[in-house]
Amino acid sequence: MQSLTVIKIGGNIVDDELSLQAFLDTYARIEGPKVLVHGGGKLATRIATQLGIETQMVNGRRITDEAMLPIAVMVYAGLINKQITAQLQKRRCDAIGISGADAQLIQSHKRPTKPIDYGYVGDFEASDVNVVRLKQLVEIGLSPVFSAITADKEGQLLNTNADTIASNVAVALATEYKVALIYCFERKGVLQDINNEDSVISTINRENFTQLKEQGVIADGMLPKIENALAAIDQGVNRVCIKKAEDLLNEKEGTTIQL
Amino acid sequence: MQSLTVIKIGGNIVDDELSLQAFLDTYARIEGPKVLVHGGGKLATRIATQLGIETQMVNGRRITDEAMLPIAVMVYAGLINKQITAQLQKRRCDAIGISGADAQLIQSHKRPTKPIDYGYVGDFEASDVNVVRLKQLVEIGLSPVFSAITADKEGQLLNTNADTIASNVAVALATEYKVALIYCFERKGVLQDINNEDSVISTINRENFTQLKEQGVIADGMLPKIENALAAIDQGVNRVCIKKAEDLLNEKEGTTIQL
Repeated sequence: MQSLTVIKIGGNIVDDELSLQAFLDTYARIEGPKVLVHGGGKLATRIATQLGIETQMVNGRRITDEAMLPIAVMVYAGLINKQITAQLQKRRCDAIGISGADAQLIQSHKRPTKPIDYGYVGDFEASDVNVVRLKQLVEIGLSPVFSAITADKEGQLLNTNADTIASNVAVALATEYKVALIYCFERKGVLQDINNEDSVISTINRENFTQLKEQGVIADGMLPKIENALAAIDQGVNRVCIKKAEDLLNEKEGTTIQL
Repeated sequence: MQSLTVIKIGGNIVDDELSLQAFLDTYARIEGPKVLVHGGGKLATRIATQLGIETQMVNGRRITDEAMLPIAVMVYAGLINKQITAQLQKRRCDAIGISGADAQLIQSHKRPTKPIDYGYVGDFEASDVNVVRLKQLVEIGLSPVFSAITADKEGQLLNTNADTIASNVAVALATEYKVALIYCFERKGVLQDINNEDSVISTINRENFTQLKEQGVIADGMLPKIENALAAIDQGVNRVCIKKAEDLLNEKEGTTIQL
């Protein structure tokens, strides 16, 4: 099986011009088929504020209401996606900027409004990824760059979690490729001691995960991340890595989650 | 040679929800390979105004300055492009929304700043269209939907004339397909008498064009349109049509420019 890399970058890279350019330099040098998934960052919120649209939050999560949706689409699928794509092309990486709506690559459905109405937010499973199409794009030598926008079968655009896109796309492609899924993180990896950047846990598997959870080393926001990573492994992804963007080409750095 | 249709729609359709939905119903029913090019409409100007950005105009043409460029990219390559794509997918037309930056489909260059500095505006020739890539997308069954944004070789995004994209893409594809280029127009076609919608000139060629020009029937804004159409014909496009969107499937309607 051929190897394929799926990489997810979030706001900490997208929001910072220097970090983004450094990441793209490295990304362009990754060999073999690859897929990039980018989050949105703070630009959508900033533009919403400038347009006088209030960002509604529940439990620290943004509500994508009717006023916010077009801004998310403009910023994520438009500005950020095309800037990344054009900058990768400059670096001779044959990128194609897409959303889930394009080529019906991802068909999502609007999240149920109970218990909390998050608005125009899309959910989907790995089985909703159009693997045949995605493979065709990869096989003609293109590097898909996903923005975190999808559409349902009625053509309704929906704001979608970039981590979910990355993991579902990785799981879907695992039937065709030996997939490495890499989450670019603001720290060197999952830390044994949160105050010590040199205490990276190099490997997490089902066995030590239970221990680390009991010890309270993996807690809060990291807990669902690792659970999702282990679920991706269970569904055929070869390995999941959590590391700094600057360590992307260095296989020894970061935390690797595997069987 | 297989037939392929390139269709361009402008602001009169993009700006009006009902017109756009009606057009997409018809477009989805066009058989065979097809490429859609859409203009921007008034939304970018409206958002710019809301953001307090003044639209600079010279000779009735908008200047794409540093503040306007990201708005053009967001609105054209983001919101409008993804809305059209998702709505075509709903209609079982396997659309993929792209810009010239994607898959390096169009490499443009920034327009010289003399005599007039139009800002971040891209120009290109038919030879700058990546025919191999475009054909690959079409051959796997996709219908490309172009927004009027391109990039230069430095990865600089540039606002680009949608008519130019339509005609250059049509000319470029004419080496591989029998191409019909259709401009959707607010009138039934080129009119003999501007006040009579039933006076459509059904055919224009080099011969009667000279006459029509001398008679003053073709003048002002229509003159460069017809000249560009005749140039496209000279470069291998099979025929260029100017017609109303609602007449798209009716071959008898509109004005056809041919050899």
